[in-house]
Amino acid sequence: MVLGRVVGTVVSTHKSSKIVGLKFLLLELINPSSMEGLDKYVVAMDGVGAGTGEIVFYASGSCGRYTEATLGKPADATITAIVDTIEIGGKPTYVKNPEPETAK
Amino acid sequence: MVLGRVVGTVVSTHKSSKIVGLKFLLLELINPSSMEGLDKYVVAMDGVGAGTGEIVFYASGSCGRYTEATLGKPADATITAIVDTIEIGGKPTYVKNPEPETAK
Amino acid sequence: MVLGRVVGTVVSTHKSSKIVGLKFLLLELINPSSMEGLDKYVVAMDGVGAGTGEIVFYASGSCGRYTEATLGKPADATITAIVDTIEIGGKPTYVKNPEPETAK
Amino acid sequence: MVLGRVVGTVVSTHKSSKIVGLKFLLLELINPSSMEGLDKYVVAMDGVGAGTGEIVFYASGSCGRYTEATLGKPADATITAIVDTIEIGGKPTYVKNPEPETAK
Amino acid sequence: MVLGRVVGTVVSTHKSSKIVGLKFLLLELINPSSMEGLDKYVVAMDGVGAGTGEIVFYASGSCGRYTEATLGKPADATITAIVDTIEIGGKPTYVKNPEPETAK
Repeated sequence: MVLGRVVGTVVSTHKSSKIVGLKFLLLELINPSSMEGLDKYVVAMDGVGAGTGEIVFYASGSCGRYTEATLGKPADATITAIVDTIEIGGKPTYVKNPEPETAK
Repeated sequence: MVLGRVVGTVVSTHKSSKIVGLKFLLLELINPSSMEGLDKYVVAMDGVGAGTGEIVFYASGSCGRYTEATLGKPADATITAIVDTIEIGGKPTYVKNPEPETAK
Repeated sequence: MVLGRVVGTVVSTHKSSKIVGLKFLLLELINPSSMEGLDKYVVAMDGVGAGTGEIVFYASGSCGRYTEATLGKPADATITAIVDTIEIGGKPTYVKNPEPETAK
Repeated sequence: MVLGRVVGTVVSTHKSSKIVGLKFLLLELINPSSMEGLDKYVVAMDGVGAGTGEIVFYASGSCGRYTEATLGKPADATITAIVDTIEIGGKPTYVKNPEPETAK
Repeated sequence: MVLGRVVGTVVSTHKSSKIVGLKFLLLELINPSSMEGLDKYVVAMDGVGAGTGEIVFYASGSCGRYTEATLGKPADATITAIVDTIEIGGKPTYVKNPEPETAK
């Protein structure tokens, strides 16, 4: 699976009947070590209710058709998880919504 | 799915009988942030009646066979949507046929 | 589909029984805007009787198995069309065997 | 199959029901000649109980769905082997847990 | 199909039961025009009994599962041919085991 950040949306009224009702999110691929964007983009079907700014991973190729939302549909990229944490070498490189520090 | 701009057409009279009757469009892949072309090209089957200059996205790989027009055909790239708007970070980077400004 | 120029052939006597009888052509991928070769190569099964020097496109991945010649075979690239013309922005970038100009 | 080093983990609570119960490992792709990391990453399903620091290879694309752990699931990368040795030109470039040298 | 040179082997004792009994060869991808290695590597299942130093091509992606040796297995790269000759523009760029020249 490929890691990306939800950066926006794509809207289409004129489209294949097979994908009517699906939501198209624009993802920028990221380097999970630096968490920087790679300036490479993909349009992904939203299978989990992801929102802008969230880090997600998606299933690519034919695997994009193997979620509840996209079975048998022409979906070569479907978001299958909203990421909570990424950890490399025992240290987190990404933590979603960290708890605010409490004043002591 | 992958974003591209329809830049032209490809014509072939000598071809597999499986793809007779399909229209072959030439797409240049784009960066949806800058909307610039990437000088990378793909021949896509037209599943939605797209025209030159339009921004589209297509289903790649085996997903190219999962549209009404291409079921069971050797189509590794099939246009599944004509894009109306692309929005990144809450701001549009692309709007199709914007309404002309009315003189005040 | 991917555009390439037939630049040569690959011969193998020791091969999978599944691909015995197929012809293996060597393609150099091209940029259809400049028509220059990209120095990237692929071995493609010949599904249409293509010859050296011709511009073709091929179906990649699993779509390579969806032609008459390659059904169910391990063919991840199968030529499905010999290209007559490529047109970008209304102007041809490639025309096969153009008619010779007649002296006036 | 693609070679990588297990460098970390990815955790998600909000995900497709199809992948609940699977473990997501973060791999950095490697060059098996130099054994250096390529700064390219993939999230892979763990099909063999791999641990951080191990060299593995994974099955990509639809093949990611053809292991016991991932049958029919949207898994485009599934670890299928923990590597013991890599040998190039008759010389090992990688040996897992080499026997410690005995003092003479 | 993709051309490569068999440069070594990969050994794994801890692996998916689906790939037990298969041999894993390490290939370096090549440019068939110069015959130079590209410093890009793939682990391929051996479907034809290839040996170190030989030039081969392999079927990638789902096509890797369509050989006798790998049917239904998670094999995204399976060698399907040992190459005898590669010819570009009518001239050989590679000939396997050429006949030694006879002294005149």
